Amino acid sequence: MTEPNGSTPSLEVCLSPALLHLYDVKNSIVVIIDVLRATSTICTALYNGAAKIIPVASVEECVNIGRQLSAITAGERDGKIAEGLAYGNSPFEYPRDFIEGKILVLTTTNGTKLLHMAKDAIQIITGSFPNLSAVCEYLVAQGKNVILGCAAWKDRVNMEDTLFAGAVVHRIKQHFNVNCDSALAAETLYNTAKDDIFGFMRQASHFQRLSRYGLEKDIRYCLTPDSANVLPILQNGELVVG
Amino acid sequence: MTEPNGSTPSLEVCLSPALLHLYDVKNSIVVIIDVLRATSTICTALYNGAAKIIPVASVEECVNIGRQLSAITAGERDGKIAEGLAYGNSPFEYPRDFIEGKILVLTTTNGTKLLHMAKDAIQIITGSFPNLSAVCEYLVAQGKNVILGCAAWKDRVNMEDTLFAGAVVHRIKQHFNVNCDSALAAETLYNTAKDDIFGFMRQASHFQRLSRYGLEKDIRYCLTPDSANVLPILQNGELVVG
Repeated sequence: MTEPNGSTPSLEVCLSPALLHLYDVKNSIVVIIDVLRATSTICTALYNGAAKIIPVASVEECVNIGRQLSAITAGERDGKIAEGLAYGNSPFEYPRDFIEGKILVLTTTNGTKLLHMAKDAIQIITGSFPNLSAVCEYLVAQGKNVILGCAAWKDRVNMEDTLFAGAVVHRIKQHFNVNCDSALAAETLYNTAKDDIFGFMRQASHFQRLSRYGLEKDIRYCLTPDSANVLPILQNGELVVG
Repeated sequence: MTEPNGSTPSLEVCLSPALLHLYDVKNSIVVIIDVLRATSTICTALYNGAAKIIPVASVEECVNIGRQLSAITAGERDGKIAEGLAYGNSPFEYPRDFIEGKILVLTTTNGTKLLHMAKDAIQIITGSFPNLSAVCEYLVAQGKNVILGCAAWKDRVNMEDTLFAGAVVHRIKQHFNVNCDSALAAETLYNTAKDDIFGFMRQASHFQRLSRYGLEKDIRYCLTPDSANVLPILQNGELVVG
């Protein structure tokens, strides 16, 4: 499934971090997808001028690195800003007049875990509806094998990440060899949902969880394409605009 | 998610054996789903009068048990009858005039693996389109938590098992509490495909694999509901009509 001599690269979808070992990460670009809300917030902060974003696994690491770099610390656990951190996971917390030129240290459970698991990839980028076009254009331009990696929810397959993966498959599949039932499933789900993604998502478990926290505005933003259309790319453990 | 005092039992879908550890197997009935073709062949052989079916993991075990019990041995590896065994995985190999009253020892890779992983379940049954109604009626009558366990393909999510899980969700969801995005995904895919499941499956990876072996007739049978409508149920390591 490599692409020497100009053969068609592969496009696959991995629905959960617990399935990533089944994929050839080393020979692929991996797109980390955590639609609600980590990767939506990441592209939004970078779009609004953040200097860089440092993704970390634990709250403790977040606090320590934040202190060392005089950076903004952010992260939630169970829907609340984690103790010791200053900000949360909402994209609306990072407007330009706040985040421009600053470093954001961000801890999320699902997305960060997958990011570390994919460390041997050719390249790691992050994807979400607000930067859908940037992701698609990058992947087509690179012409390499692609794994769309859903962060999922504690390893459980979730609808929002699957739908985003499906949106990417739908947009760029003609440039790739797609021999992956998860990609077929994701695209079919996206095609079913695309005329009213917000309405479709009302049935999903995470929607119901976040709605209880009053986060419908966040969800609506996180499901809207191209409102923060930059490409976050991982370089030396930091996400910067690619 | 248990169901004491008549509370509504849960209905969940597990898309791959590699995700089964995320589910509460001990407090659930697990439906083993391996549409192409193990569980379709299992209900067909029982429907046609097989005394019982003994699922085993390895070809060696299959040969040994077959010899001990003077039973029919069956199983494939890479689309061919495995060396040392007498029959394959096709439901058409087990008509009544051949299988009635006999014991079948069957080895399959994906289905058998999941069956052993689910051994602590309240009950294990097998499901496929040929026994869709029998499965649904049983699950509704029991009123217990249900996990629809897709055997998948070497742990990769596959379309045919997902579609069958979706068919079950579609039929019986009003009797259960469904808070599972995999169930939502499976049902949505089933609804998209149901008017022409065979046509939809043409895009799937396993369809393409089996077609190369000339097995379109098998596939068509395995996607047709209720042509072998019995309930295979696991008792002491053997599948019998429940």
